Amino acid sequence: MSAADEYIEKNRDRFIEELAELCSFPSIANQGAEGIRACRDWLGERLGRFGERVETLEAGGMPSLYAELPGTGRKSVLLYQHYDVQPVEPLGLWDSPPFEPAVRDGRLFARGACDDKSDVMARLQAVETLEAVHGELPLTLRFLIEGEEETGSMTFDRIVEDNAGKLRADGCIWEAASFNNRGRPEVIFGCRGLLYLQLKVSLLNFDQHSSLASLFPSAPNLLVHALASLVDQDQRVAIAGFYDDVVAANEDDRRVMAGIDPELEEGRRLIGFDRLVGEPPPDRMIEQLLFTPTCNIDGITTGYQGPGSMTVLPASATAKVDFRLVPRQDPADIQAKLRRHLDSHGFEKVEFEWAELEKPSRSPIDSFLGRTVLETEEELFGQPPAVWPFGAGTGPMHPIAEGLGVAIVGPTGAGRPDSRLHAPNENVRLDDYIESIRLIVRILERFGAGQ
Amino acid sequence: MSAADEYIEKNRDRFIEELAELCSFPSIANQGAEGIRACRDWLGERLGRFGERVETLEAGGMPSLYAELPGTGRKSVLLYQHYDVQPVEPLGLWDSPPFEPAVRDGRLFARGACDDKSDVMARLQAVETLEAVHGELPLTLRFLIEGEEETGSMTFDRIVEDNAGKLRADGCIWEAASFNNRGRPEVIFGCRGLLYLQLKVSLLNFDQHSSLASLFPSAPNLLVHALASLVDQDQRVAIAGFYDDVVAANEDDRRVMAGIDPELEEGRRLIGFDRLVGEPPPDRMIEQLLFTPTCNIDGITTGYQGPGSMTVLPASATAKVDFRLVPRQDPADIQAKLRRHLDSHGFEKVEFEWAELEKPSRSPIDSFLGRTVLETEEELFGQPPAVWPFGAGTGPMHPIAEGLGVAIVGPTGAGRPDSRLHAPNENVRLDDYIESIRLIVRILERFGAGQ
Repeated sequence: MSAADEYIEKNRDRFIEELAELCSFPSIANQGAEGIRACRDWLGERLGRFGERVETLEAGGMPSLYAELPGTGRKSVLLYQHYDVQPVEPLGLWDSPPFEPAVRDGRLFARGACDDKSDVMARLQAVETLEAVHGELPLTLRFLIEGEEETGSMTFDRIVEDNAGKLRADGCIWEAASFNNRGRPEVIFGCRGLLYLQLKVSLLNFDQHSSLASLFPSAPNLLVHALASLVDQDQRVAIAGFYDDVVAANEDDRRVMAGIDPELEEGRRLIGFDRLVGEPPPDRMIEQLLFTPTCNIDGITTGYQGPGSMTVLPASATAKVDFRLVPRQDPADIQAKLRRHLDSHGFEKVEFEWAELEKPSRSPIDSFLGRTVLETEEELFGQPPAVWPFGAGTGPMHPIAEGLGVAIVGPTGAGRPDSRLHAPNENVRLDDYIESIRLIVRILERFGAGQ
Repeated sequence: MSAADEYIEKNRDRFIEELAELCSFPSIANQGAEGIRACRDWLGERLGRFGERVETLEAGGMPSLYAELPGTGRKSVLLYQHYDVQPVEPLGLWDSPPFEPAVRDGRLFARGACDDKSDVMARLQAVETLEAVHGELPLTLRFLIEGEEETGSMTFDRIVEDNAGKLRADGCIWEAASFNNRGRPEVIFGCRGLLYLQLKVSLLNFDQHSSLASLFPSAPNLLVHALASLVDQDQRVAIAGFYDDVVAANEDDRRVMAGIDPELEEGRRLIGFDRLVGEPPPDRMIEQLLFTPTCNIDGITTGYQGPGSMTVLPASATAKVDFRLVPRQDPADIQAKLRRHLDSHGFEKVEFEWAELEKPSRSPIDSFLGRTVLETEEELFGQPPAVWPFGAGTGPMHPIAEGLGVAIVGPTGAGRPDSRLHAPNENVRLDDYIESIRLIVRILERFGAGQ
């Protein structure tokens, strides 16, 4: 057992208590600044214990926290995490209150326990461990903890641009990826982009008796036709120019993706689908998952939604729609093309109420940091991690990877498929949490010692 | 002033108090039998004061009340009303509690004040008035007061069939029609039919992260395509055979409808539409309103409906859809054709959760009762009423008109366009209510005296 492992083992209970304390803050970014501010203050104090000046970086939205922790080596790493969390609805499905962290069966249950407060604390505990066993850090760390990741990082690109000089580093360790269903670690090197819109159609001043549908236009009918015009059942998007900038998978990508188990049968049992979109063969599933941009309906609201019948011609109808974009699609370009599609197909009255835009991002797998993470994980976990050229989801990687030119790696963290991210009873296994501290310590040691 | 008018004037305050008392019962048919039963008992007692045995007619749903009140003449009239009312949601928009009737500005506000408790009480007061001034009724009245009109009259056809012998009469006076925006009385001679369905698509066991939309099928997307396949923006229904049994307007219908003012400008100001379905010329508006069968979306529920964004691939999606059917479309036939349409267009997974079916109905305008109502209204109101060959909405007329062969007339009642039927602050003008008693007295006197 290394000195670091011993230190972590000795402080295990306190490390877990501190994670629980961080998880007690209701830092929900889209529910006002109060919960965010209390969490930021606690975290700022916690970061400040390492003796450095902690800065609040803002650009009109929720603040990010930043601190530079100088080390002895020439290398530097940017560590990205976020302290904001998802909303907690539906509250009734939680077995214990989401902001009263509770340990059951070797797991800590709380909103944010996994996403992403386990990363925040694991990395702070890793710094403490490194300083304790080495007396100093082997490399310079730039800690960046975002406060609005769960609400689309609306001002994050501005924060990064305004602070480019502080944030540049030899690599960026991102918010962590998870283990898969079979316990295999996964490492990601990018993410898809996102265009999320709220669409609204409003054609009448107020709801009418449905017998008037033979005379008055129907908002839900217009919205339904507009939505149906966008995409078919196999995710073929009908918007002109939608695929113009798509970069397809190349042979390198395919070789890397061949190492990812699509876990088809586990998925079928758990999720219950009859067929997959386009019915791909198993060895093309991951490529389709990552390289197919999507148009997805997140929600529709119109008319009467209670039990039984009510005969109403609704005056308005609303839909939430998201597009997952692959490298190098640009969400602003897709938004403009969507507007043109609607206008040229008779759907001028479908309005955009608001939009969130995030660009896709990819970093090279063979960067020095990338290789360091893969080698360290194979050593610690006893098996090579599955490599994802980019993840299926979205995060604000683009301002850092493409904006600052800093290669990003998302190492394995403490998450499992049953960690219930974004859902009631979010949780993290305590053993996984402690293991994630050990992993970060080793990655930083190895990276700091490298050339 | 006639003796009847004097009697009505003398008892005006009590007549209004009794209407208010009836309106204090929360007789909402789709919210359990308790509110229905208390209202039925009160009404049964009230009907029983005329000395006749009051019967409860049931066929597994909410009960109807029935009483035969014998008169001197050879003629008989069936009087149809209903004592159940719409739900009261949204409760917050009521200025006074819906079941605490309140008089303001010469109106009585309560759920059911107009629809249909003003008819129920006006007709009971008319009986009292006739007996008071004549010592007896000039004709035999068959009182039928339904208890589930607002929930699709699911068992009413069975009740009528089971009691055909009791209910047959020389004509049926239906639940009343309204005055139009310009104060002109309206009389209706039928109604459209209705097929109301709840559709459901369920493709996954639970909601997924929206990044998985490139692999897993989307329930809202399938539902949206199914709905879009049914009808275009101009109410052209694409279901094979949908129009097979439609009987178009003939010259008689057109002549009658030419007497109805479409009130286009009033409608445009109040309702705020840009264009009408199919942009009919004003002199075809009423024909289109009545003779165009519709496919209408009453509501859609799926996915995230709160503020802001949540990236979710919903596991299921639900829509409420209604078809207004014109003579002689059959709702069961349309339901079968809809099923075939969905199955043959790749929408087998769109399930029918439940359905409500009501047939369209038409009665001749020149029946003896029809002529009696039109002549009486012209005399009382000083202008000929507008004649609707049938109304745009739906009621359970078919079992009586087509089932028993009893011609139906819906005379003008106490309703106005601002009576807010089915909406918060439902109300009836007290003067209109009193006038509706006078009208029924005169119709019954004239009909009883006729050959």
